[in-house]
Amino acid sequence: MRIQVAIIGAGPAGLLLGRLLEKAGIETIILERRSQDHVLGRIRAGVLEQGTVELLDKAGVAERLHAEGLIHDGVEFCFDGDRHRFNFRELIGRTVTVYGQTEVTRDLMHARDASGSKTIYEADNVTLHDFDGDTPRVRYVKGGVEHELTCDFIAGCDGYHGVSRASVPEEAIRTFERVYPFGWLGILADTPPVGEELIYAHHERGFALCSMRSPTRSRYYIQVPAGEKVDEWSDDRFWDELRRRVDAETAGTLITGPSIEKSIALLRSFVAEPLRFGRLFLAGDAAHIVPPTGAKGLNLAASDVGALAEALIEFYRERSTAGIDGYSSRVLARIWKAERFSWWMTSILHTFPDTDAFGRRIQRAEFDYLRTSPAAARSLAENYTGLPF
Amino acid sequence: MRIQVAIIGAGPAGLLLGRLLEKAGIETIILERRSQDHVLGRIRAGVLEQGTVELLDKAGVAERLHAEGLIHDGVEFCFDGDRHRFNFRELIGRTVTVYGQTEVTRDLMHARDASGSKTIYEADNVTLHDFDGDTPRVRYVKGGVEHELTCDFIAGCDGYHGVSRASVPEEAIRTFERVYPFGWLGILADTPPVGEELIYAHHERGFALCSMRSPTRSRYYIQVPAGEKVDEWSDDRFWDELRRRVDAETAGTLITGPSIEKSIALLRSFVAEPLRFGRLFLAGDAAHIVPPTGAKGLNLAASDVGALAEALIEFYRERSTAGIDGYSSRVLARIWKAERFSWWMTSILHTFPDTDAFGRRIQRAEFDYLRTSPAAARSLAENYTGLPF
Repeated sequence: MRIQVAIIGAGPAGLLLGRLLEKAGIETIILERRSQDHVLGRIRAGVLEQGTVELLDKAGVAERLHAEGLIHDGVEFCFDGDRHRFNFRELIGRTVTVYGQTEVTRDLMHARDASGSKTIYEADNVTLHDFDGDTPRVRYVKGGVEHELTCDFIAGCDGYHGVSRASVPEEAIRTFERVYPFGWLGILADTPPVGEELIYAHHERGFALCSMRSPTRSRYYIQVPAGEKVDEWSDDRFWDELRRRVDAETAGTLITGPSIEKSIALLRSFVAEPLRFGRLFLAGDAAHIVPPTGAKGLNLAASDVGALAEALIEFYRERSTAGIDGYSSRVLARIWKAERFSWWMTSILHTFPDTDAFGRRIQRAEFDYLRTSPAAARSLAENYTGLPF
Repeated sequence: MRIQVAIIGAGPAGLLLGRLLEKAGIETIILERRSQDHVLGRIRAGVLEQGTVELLDKAGVAERLHAEGLIHDGVEFCFDGDRHRFNFRELIGRTVTVYGQTEVTRDLMHARDASGSKTIYEADNVTLHDFDGDTPRVRYVKGGVEHELTCDFIAGCDGYHGVSRASVPEEAIRTFERVYPFGWLGILADTPPVGEELIYAHHERGFALCSMRSPTRSRYYIQVPAGEKVDEWSDDRFWDELRRRVDAETAGTLITGPSIEKSIALLRSFVAEPLRFGRLFLAGDAAHIVPPTGAKGLNLAASDVGALAEALIEFYRERSTAGIDGYSSRVLARIWKAERFSWWMTSILHTFPDTDAFGRRIQRAEFDYLRTSPAAARSLAENYTGLPF
């Protein structure tokens, strides 16, 4: 079988790329190792940059997002009990939208199903071939039968552990990585969120985040040491620890309830370079990982595939390779800025086992500077709501 | 002998405090352990914030500064050969003035000599007493004879190694410190500076700074590992290494010449808390040390004594203790912001032995973000030219 673009991975990156290409008349097949239900079962981020919302609008999949998403004008930081709100709308005229990644994925799947474009779930043993030539091929096994696709391009949107990046010869790729000595223990609960906006809390006992998915569904996180086990954390123990790390008002108004999901995610920074290898492109988590502190993971994936779609459309419409030739350096420039921001937010908000008393005061000084300097607050605002390319 | 304010240390902090108090009719004596020539022989910083210039104006000692000082509208950063100029005047309407600390000290000494206020140089064995009561005393030995001063207040402006901070009971003071694993090897040369403004260079071989004292006197620095010996660095070796760390244009136009001073200064961050102990106040290097990267040392000392002078004048004029009661927290808030900025500039511009490949890319991402974001550039500009209280 022959297709224009083979997309590996049916997460939001792959689905959004497929949708943007489809709207330009470019045919795609998506191969996904897991089942559709498994993909939809993943609990992930929930804060969309304005640029991501604009891209989902362009893809024609933002109707429910606009109906149900919560527009947030800002976020709050809480340092050892002192709270400060950063009003992004006032600072730079931009906002973010709270709408779960699972919902974005669901909307994209519905649009793809309705359009008739093909997604092959539970595709086993996916292997990529000949992407250094003009006619790459993708082989996979479905229901015990081996298949082969011939295509013009392969888009690797299959995440950190996917086959796409692993298919690149070791000498052709360089990777940069930082593993943090802690994780986030997260709880999802059907309780009203404690605040109208996100509250990022720094406390000597560790970081905490009060977030939400909707007006009736809350998402809370606390920093835990690497190696911590979820089953050591009863709901009560989680709520008690969360209350200790936030200010008294937040602790006093927090409404708790049984968790409907509880898990620990380790924090990691990771970037691969370059992101183009002949006719194979990497995008999203296959290309980079950020710690979740800056809410950049899904947004970076969206901006990657937005740029990749532009480049591929340019190729098919104008037979120009300028876009695909420039893809890697263009997206990496934005990726590194988001990596820097995510690393910085992680560094000032968490406690680190090797931070001395001077380092802790520097964290506090960052907060005091941010809340007293409009320039610093604008820098935070433009990063959080998303930098331009 | 009885005096209103006894000032320990005849560096720029002590001299400026004496001058500001003298103009308000408050009598001071300055005790200095070293000779006047020794104090004037110290080579130190040379970049004055606008607020420091305003304070020297207020003290009536800025005539020569305005005639000879070089007003700089900005600075340049050079990252692995890529240069970018930050134009502070355009960004935030503020500038800095290049005028050596030695010259500031000289101007303050001349003004003090002309006014008849007393400075006792080569005062040995200075000891501070009873500053927890209403009548502190200072004892010292001059020419083999022991003397005692009775005063209302003691101002400790005698630097990091001085007696003032050391006189405070250990349990009453907390200190925060970071020692960096490198120093700055500096050269002073009677050659025209390579640039009209300062060039801060980051290079994989280490940091370098192209600075100046006047249109005919240059000051250059290169980062060297801690433990390096000055006599291992011939002038030729220094110039060769400097050329390697800057961009080709700068290296090509650098005019070298024999060094007239060459020394290594280790980099340290240090803050003491609080800065008031009854009727003893700490100011300048006795209270805090910054690495020289942000040019904050002299400027912080000036803002400390500016605030201390206000507080003491308020006490004598209005018999109000509000100013002296608030001195410590007021200046510490500004000190920590300057410590944060100095630490940050040091962190992004130097090479650290334990920085991994990810960390080096984050340094580069800081530069790329700074040169593309007006908000980030304004944040740099307001810190470099001096934050308000």
